[in-house]
Amino acid sequence: MNTTQLTQIDADVANLARGAAILGTGGGGDPYIGRLLAEAAIREHGPVRVASVEDLPDDAVVLPVAMMGAPTVMVEKLASGAQFAQAVTSLARYLGVTPTHIACIEAGGINSTIPIVAAAQLGLPLVDGDGMGRAFPEIQMVLPTIYGVRATPMSICDEKGNSGVFETVDNKWAERLARPATVEMGCSTIISTFAMSGAQVKQAYVRGTLSLCERLGRAVVDAREAHRDPVLAVTDILGGRVVAAGKVTDVQRRTTTGFARGQATVEGIGVNAGSSIELEFQNEHLLVRVDGVAQTSTPDLIMVLDAETAEPVTTEALRYGMRVRVISAPADSRWHLPESLAMVGPRYFGYDMDPVRFDGTVSSMPVPSMPASSMPVPA
Amino acid sequence: MNTTQLTQIDADVANLARGAAILGTGGGGDPYIGRLLAEAAIREHGPVRVASVEDLPDDAVVLPVAMMGAPTVMVEKLASGAQFAQAVTSLARYLGVTPTHIACIEAGGINSTIPIVAAAQLGLPLVDGDGMGRAFPEIQMVLPTIYGVRATPMSICDEKGNSGVFETVDNKWAERLARPATVEMGCSTIISTFAMSGAQVKQAYVRGTLSLCERLGRAVVDAREAHRDPVLAVTDILGGRVVAAGKVTDVQRRTTTGFARGQATVEGIGVNAGSSIELEFQNEHLLVRVDGVAQTSTPDLIMVLDAETAEPVTTEALRYGMRVRVISAPADSRWHLPESLAMVGPRYFGYDMDPVRFDGTVSSMPVPSMPASSMPVPA
Repeated sequence: MNTTQLTQIDADVANLARGAAILGTGGGGDPYIGRLLAEAAIREHGPVRVASVEDLPDDAVVLPVAMMGAPTVMVEKLASGAQFAQAVTSLARYLGVTPTHIACIEAGGINSTIPIVAAAQLGLPLVDGDGMGRAFPEIQMVLPTIYGVRATPMSICDEKGNSGVFETVDNKWAERLARPATVEMGCSTIISTFAMSGAQVKQAYVRGTLSLCERLGRAVVDAREAHRDPVLAVTDILGGRVVAAGKVTDVQRRTTTGFARGQATVEGIGVNAGSSIELEFQNEHLLVRVDGVAQTSTPDLIMVLDAETAEPVTTEALRYGMRVRVISAPADSRWHLPESLAMVGPRYFGYDMDPVRFDGTVSSMPVPSMPASSMPVPA
Repeated sequence: MNTTQLTQIDADVANLARGAAILGTGGGGDPYIGRLLAEAAIREHGPVRVASVEDLPDDAVVLPVAMMGAPTVMVEKLASGAQFAQAVTSLARYLGVTPTHIACIEAGGINSTIPIVAAAQLGLPLVDGDGMGRAFPEIQMVLPTIYGVRATPMSICDEKGNSGVFETVDNKWAERLARPATVEMGCSTIISTFAMSGAQVKQAYVRGTLSLCERLGRAVVDAREAHRDPVLAVTDILGGRVVAAGKVTDVQRRTTTGFARGQATVEGIGVNAGSSIELEFQNEHLLVRVDGVAQTSTPDLIMVLDAETAEPVTTEALRYGMRVRVISAPADSRWHLPESLAMVGPRYFGYDMDPVRFDGTVSSMPVPSMPASSMPVPA
């Protein structure tokens, strides 16, 4: 199997789910649950074809699907999974279109695997890409937003059989309406949003995310088997670094307004002995400090891995006594555009600071990387 | 003009709006605002035809429309009124139907007049009836619910251009999803819900509500002009009674979770001198006590009128120092069926008591009045 380009997802999705949970930066849900769901769907419906972004027809009808809400709750109320495909068919019916492809909105243990379930159930190929290259807590926080792609019409479904479709004046309003609905529906829903043409996906999506997830997950296993350090295997692939190592000594976590918000304190060990590492998260890790000094902040990636095995630890799974390594890696460079930072930068989340890059440098200047021809259009 | 059967609504809707606000039992919004909206729409689009329930074709496509939320807020953010028709067209599009008639869900200063606006804008006749014969605070609280009519698909719109459509497993869930959406949309939205055939309207609706509103409003004016007591003109028409007269001495009101909840204390005057009258409301008046003794409770009608002019006073307009008379009147007898009382009886609203009828008698036994052939089907 070619590790650089996934063409099909077979019944074993352990590596993909693990890699997705790593890119999920603490959010995006439990990779074990996501793996079970995807594997069950593939056993029932057969393997899922994977379509590379560059090969998408411009007129492809791509419907992304995701879980919204607190993954903790999702885990506790998993039903048949019928609502995964239902979110897609509900939106397709509302739009009066026939979907040709399913896609992931973000990377994460649940949100990279739910689309596999939907694709298997619907017999549609899954796009090898996503809207973030990581996970973020709110609907509007995807690269398509800065390209003017609308989050609505979006569909929302729960496991009880309730559903809805929203049309909103902007993508932030999609978040504002879907969030209280999600809370009322039990803090976890399935949504289909950011319906796009193939041409829009080519412009706005992060490419090769599923392949990268598979490659990350496999590299961790390979490193373990070869008695190499699996955490370094991850930072190598992502072009990141190990920020600090330590033992979790305190976790403050509350599920509020549909998010898992909180802070964790990690007591440094080894080269970090005597240091205090602080993590701030809202579903995803947003900021890591060592002895009060910011090391990396959103939008760059902050990930917590088991110190020995490199298994990703979600913000909801963080527990006292866990030995972890905190790593960081660069986000898709478009996340550092001014309009992106307004949406996902530290200040949006209430931290009065310029973004700190994955390597600890402070960049108050944007680093645009899009060619002029694909610059964002106003939303 | 025949006062017993309205056939057309012309540019002067003062009487209809006043009568609707009386039947609104304290809720349903400000009749003055409702009147202005309806009159402006009729001036622009022409008179609105009124269709009697008994004359509806069985295959008529009837789409009710209403305001949801706190009328106080509605008053403060009235826009063009474009969303009144939009709620209807949004639901019609979702259902894939062409509406033939507009209808009121409840009686009330706003909710009897918004449908006039929508009917004028859409050039459709308005059904002379409603789903309650009064007003109640939650979506599922209509007689169609006990006949098994579904509240969803329902549409919801705000004045900013946001909209949604919900499909829920039962009518209580329609309330549960639309309420937080309404709160997020600014505590006031326009909804279209309980789409019905003409046959369903004939079975489940209260007949002649608009004609009754017009007649009530006209009777108040006529009594004033003839120097008769306009409050007694109202109780005569409704078959009700004056519970007590007094001066408002205290109002506790809070707009919370999209409702105007509260209590008011009225110090008795005249024949009630020395008595304390207490009103409990949630958008609508739900319970009136005199010296601690319940006089009337939901589902029967409790109305507060200006002591001299009989102008209806909404729960949101109640103010210290107002001289009022509290009157009561019988609800449509179907509201006293056991399944109705489970939905709108005192216990649903947190009062541990059997319903007290409009005449002060306690009826713990249901008083069914439907012929067996039209008994409710399970929801």
